[in-house]
Amino acid sequence: MASAAKSNHSVHFDGDEADIGETLNRIKTHKGVVGIIVLTQDGVVLKSTLDDETASSYGLLVHDLVRRSRLGIRDFDPSNDLSFLRIRTKKHEIMVAPDRDYLLIVIQNPNSENGQYEPLRLRTRPETADDDGDKSAL
Amino acid sequence: MASAAKSNHSVHFDGDEADIGETLNRIKTHKGVVGIIVLTQDGVVLKSTLDDETASSYGLLVHDLVRRSRLGIRDFDPSNDLSFLRIRTKKHEIMVAPDRDYLLIVIQNPNSENGQYEPLRLRTRPETADDDGDKSAL
Repeated sequence: MASAAKSNHSVHFDGDEADIGETLNRIKTHKGVVGIIVLTQDGVVLKSTLDDETASSYGLLVHDLVRRSRLGIRDFDPSNDLSFLRIRTKKHEIMVAPDRDYLLIVIQNPNSENGQYEPLRLRTRPETADDDGDKSAL
Repeated sequence: MASAAKSNHSVHFDGDEADIGETLNRIKTHKGVVGIIVLTQDGVVLKSTLDDETASSYGLLVHDLVRRSRLGIRDFDPSNDLSFLRIRTKKHEIMVAPDRDYLLIVIQNPNSENGQYEPLRLRTRPETADDDGDKSAL
């Protein structure tokens, strides 16, 4: 009988690209999931369901938080280690499962009832002259 | 009818010392709670159930993580904000509820079945000459 691993706490990649793709596809179908990012331990985006800018911005923040949490926790007790990180915001929840080689980040909208929600994008893109060029030019 | 606010997500202090003491006493009785720390927004330990060194070390780490999470999240979307942070480690879980004026940190041992667990203390106290003096001197 196939056992379904339901917990996000036990995510293990073998460094196999096909495995990662399969895992992402499985998670993507979960209700409320608005984005998935897989980072290398160096913070490089390996896979993502988001646009490049959003993925790398979230990746950078999460990578920094994981590194600092881990350092602090190991410093307090060398036999301890970070196993999961949840950052809940007013609009969504960022869940981070640190694996041996990768960091899996799942961004979820816990308020979504019907799976209807805005796609996740940064809202602070730097404005350039081109951005409003189409509108102002008559 | 009195409504019991069970969620840790809705902790509000009015800056009243008695209120804080009451909240701490209520939380302390929860199963698996090994430590509680209340920090000011500047990271100063206001109240704690731990020894001073442990409280200030955890306080410093959590204060830094909350500040960085908040900055990042607001930077991505100024209308968003941090509402809760959970740092799960192999040995315990650190839960952080950021309030307007305070940060409430609850450290829980989720593996405790019978409420029996070691008290939380740092394990990396700097070794001094005095530490092993008694053993090595014969």
